[in-house]
Amino acid sequence: MAITIKSSIAYNFAAPTDFLLQMEAAVIPEQVLTGPGLTLTPTEHTARVAGEDAIGERIWLRCSGEFRADYEITAEIERALPDISQLPSMLPHELPSEAVPYLFDSRFCPADQFHSFIEAEFGDLQGGARVAAIHDWVARKFTYTPGSSTATTTALDSFVERQGVCRDYAHVVITMVRASGIPARYVSCYAPNVEPQDFHAVAEVFLADPAGPPGTGSWHLVDATEMADRAKIVKIGVGRDAAEVSFLTSYGMAEFIDKQITVTET
Amino acid sequence: MAITIKSSIAYNFAAPTDFLLQMEAAVIPEQVLTGPGLTLTPTEHTARVAGEDAIGERIWLRCSGEFRADYEITAEIERALPDISQLPSMLPHELPSEAVPYLFDSRFCPADQFHSFIEAEFGDLQGGARVAAIHDWVARKFTYTPGSSTATTTALDSFVERQGVCRDYAHVVITMVRASGIPARYVSCYAPNVEPQDFHAVAEVFLADPAGPPGTGSWHLVDATEMADRAKIVKIGVGRDAAEVSFLTSYGMAEFIDKQITVTET
Amino acid sequence: MAITIKSSIAYNFAAPTDFLLQMEAAVIPEQVLTGPGLTLTPTEHTARVAGEDAIGERIWLRCSGEFRADYEITAEIERALPDISQLPSMLPHELPSEAVPYLFDSRFCPADQFHSFIEAEFGDLQGGARVAAIHDWVARKFTYTPGSSTATTTALDSFVERQGVCRDYAHVVITMVRASGIPARYVSCYAPNVEPQDFHAVAEVFLADPAGPPGTGSWHLVDATEMADRAKIVKIGVGRDAAEVSFLTSYGMAEFIDKQITVTET
Amino acid sequence: MAITIKSSIAYNFAAPTDFLLQMEAAVIPEQVLTGPGLTLTPTEHTARVAGEDAIGERIWLRCSGEFRADYEITAEIERALPDISQLPSMLPHELPSEAVPYLFDSRFCPADQFHSFIEAEFGDLQGGARVAAIHDWVARKFTYTPGSSTATTTALDSFVERQGVCRDYAHVVITMVRASGIPARYVSCYAPNVEPQDFHAVAEVFLADPAGPPGTGSWHLVDATEMADRAKIVKIGVGRDAAEVSFLTSYGMAEFIDKQITVTET
Repeated sequence: MAITIKSSIAYNFAAPTDFLLQMEAAVIPEQVLTGPGLTLTPTEHTARVAGEDAIGERIWLRCSGEFRADYEITAEIERALPDISQLPSMLPHELPSEAVPYLFDSRFCPADQFHSFIEAEFGDLQGGARVAAIHDWVARKFTYTPGSSTATTTALDSFVERQGVCRDYAHVVITMVRASGIPARYVSCYAPNVEPQDFHAVAEVFLADPAGPPGTGSWHLVDATEMADRAKIVKIGVGRDAAEVSFLTSYGMAEFIDKQITVTET
Repeated sequence: MAITIKSSIAYNFAAPTDFLLQMEAAVIPEQVLTGPGLTLTPTEHTARVAGEDAIGERIWLRCSGEFRADYEITAEIERALPDISQLPSMLPHELPSEAVPYLFDSRFCPADQFHSFIEAEFGDLQGGARVAAIHDWVARKFTYTPGSSTATTTALDSFVERQGVCRDYAHVVITMVRASGIPARYVSCYAPNVEPQDFHAVAEVFLADPAGPPGTGSWHLVDATEMADRAKIVKIGVGRDAAEVSFLTSYGMAEFIDKQITVTET
Repeated sequence: MAITIKSSIAYNFAAPTDFLLQMEAAVIPEQVLTGPGLTLTPTEHTARVAGEDAIGERIWLRCSGEFRADYEITAEIERALPDISQLPSMLPHELPSEAVPYLFDSRFCPADQFHSFIEAEFGDLQGGARVAAIHDWVARKFTYTPGSSTATTTALDSFVERQGVCRDYAHVVITMVRASGIPARYVSCYAPNVEPQDFHAVAEVFLADPAGPPGTGSWHLVDATEMADRAKIVKIGVGRDAAEVSFLTSYGMAEFIDKQITVTET
Repeated sequence: MAITIKSSIAYNFAAPTDFLLQMEAAVIPEQVLTGPGLTLTPTEHTARVAGEDAIGERIWLRCSGEFRADYEITAEIERALPDISQLPSMLPHELPSEAVPYLFDSRFCPADQFHSFIEAEFGDLQGGARVAAIHDWVARKFTYTPGSSTATTTALDSFVERQGVCRDYAHVVITMVRASGIPARYVSCYAPNVEPQDFHAVAEVFLADPAGPPGTGSWHLVDATEMADRAKIVKIGVGRDAAEVSFLTSYGMAEFIDKQITVTET
């Protein structure tokens, strides 16, 4: 399965401005990438740093005037896709240290407030079965509504409004999964069949590997918008929530000019 | 300088409950620890994982009934204490990847909303001079008021209420520093002269080492409550904000029984 | 049915302070009051103003030092108590002007965010049947938990936390009823069988009088905590939500000393 | 001074929908109105109810399909315009009952959180002098930025973001004035020189009449955007905040088509 991505963004910076860019597919074993990659208009400097959990890279850039980034890549995905509902959760004390931070509340995911709800709705389910039930609950109750949320909308807002975009679906799933004592993180990605075509975002949850030695676990994608096929998601980066994996974070005024995303399956 | 810490907490768990404990001083070069350390009532299991940024450890425990942790240690602190107001900030593209996550919004620190305020109040200051001015601003405007905040109080709430406890002071400083494009994290700690005696919390900011090679930086403590002397702070752990470094995080009902902290200088 | 109320509150004011007191049963046709009424320690002045919707009175007081209010009254209640689930709602254009403000969002009741939820959960029910279903939903899903909420907890918080005190139950019911296009207000009151004994709060909804001429409606009590019998509730005052009917609102520092409420049925 | 208003709005309702319209200038002594008034496309019914504090009217309408309202009026304004900074505030116990509700927290105006700030910044000023200082503070610190706020932005958000539109300026002023123990309400209005031309909103504060008998007070307009001349503001309606005086509140899906406002001085 090959996924071909063409994405481009353009901004105008009235003054010299530092900004972080994270729009390239991550170089990780499950994604084999070929193609021209990223082309940028000239900038004052370019510095790459590792993304969260060493997945993908963030690029520091600084420029003024019009900035344009064009990205083109083809990704071959090879990813284990077990039935999540059959996976047990790790016992808390078996969790590796790198998964633990994904249990805590983050900017848009106030998991602490969801304990009673989770216990009442999903208290009889554990591990992957509970994650699957949370996915189904959100998928069934929510309506995908472009424009219905803003940059400050939290999972608490979305929970009652029952609508949002991919960012909001991911935040609600992450919040509920964390409230269950299961690590969950936010994945910024590309995927075919996202309507309207755009950057996409899904949740990723940490569950036990039933076939592995005790204490082995891994991350599994969950998309409650049901627009993306897990086998075809091309990961860009991960973080606690959307606050940590914007495709562009500017430290100064950035005027949006254009964004074009095309993801096709070949 | 030796700091002696005696701390104990007691909780009751009605049912078998997993919880994370993080109340030991971190084993890091700047803190030489001697003494009996941590004593726990019997638990079902004990598993240690590294704390955030490999500073300190979190301990997974599981038990039911009364749980008690007693901790006793003496710490010799050796820590560089430059005048923060004289330190330059790193250029963004020089920041190491591990500092970058501390630029983003977190649960209690919505830095994004503070850009205009920061630019208007501190726009003429850079780097350490700006951090020092933020420290002074918070120290001068705020009143330390036990009981004035709750577990859901954000830096936005505290900013207008102008009161709080150490947690709230740290959150406001962190938020304003991040809004300045300077990494800032939350430090849970012990310190003498904290009134009333309790766990303490301060901010830590990442600034350039003026004497080091280009692109070298380090973390520096900032306590806008002005109760703790930087030379005498014993660090427990760090995180994005209070959501990530509670001394106890329970995955189930935990009934508080007692907490006693004594920190003395000898 | 006679309800006997004995309530007293005591506060200390370090400096001369203005404050509003609203703790007397309202003089309204459905409540016939007898007894000594309110006794206050000396204050600088006393001025009574009508409460919201002319139900009950607010008393402006000003004093410094210890303030104590003792109140004793017996109320005979005579109140129509139709089965709410059988009452039709008014058509919006039939609502009297005094009911219309109770359709809007207020401090603790962000009804606007609840439209999708309400439509999905209760969309097939109208008028009183919907109000009854909302009552049942809250009564079934929520746990009455003293100490679980704070003075800034909104109906959005309570909605997910699924716990709270009478104030929070009332806010959630009001919010959901308003999101249904039915006016709802907050009623501060006394009632027997409230555990622990305290001031109580319930919702009140505006529905059509099926027997009256077209366009006639009236207010009906709804207590999702199910602690108070509608026939025995003694109303103090009404408002958009708790922000408007505190028993004491101080314009300066007020130190709480004591509060005692006893409500008995004789 | 004659102000000529031409305003029109158009919406589409996919299904029969009830909605409230409030876009006519209020018939109150200070505004003498002449002209054709309001013209509506056909609706299922039309019912007028008094606006808040009997200022202006709300119109209940119900229709499906395209709805269009055209309004044209000329207003002669005669309004006392004393220098606000010279007006004393009422003593709290002198406030008439109708002003008291405007002391409390409302949806977008959490005045309770602002006490410390207000005391620290404006504690040495009283009454109208304080209101004038609040006006100046907001006018000086804030930047009028169309598009910077959303329908859920509160005065707390705006306070730190230091930008917004007329709605946000009014909310911040109202919140700070209420935190000073002075009643403040929200006024929806038309005014010349509003850029871009649109419905406008300002605050109104209740202060003592120095020439009147003791206990006499009245409402005075405050526009911290400084776009509108108090002598030329044509009031539509008042309320606790923006939640209560939308020009259109729909109880169902309403698709925005168009809005045109022209206010000229002749």
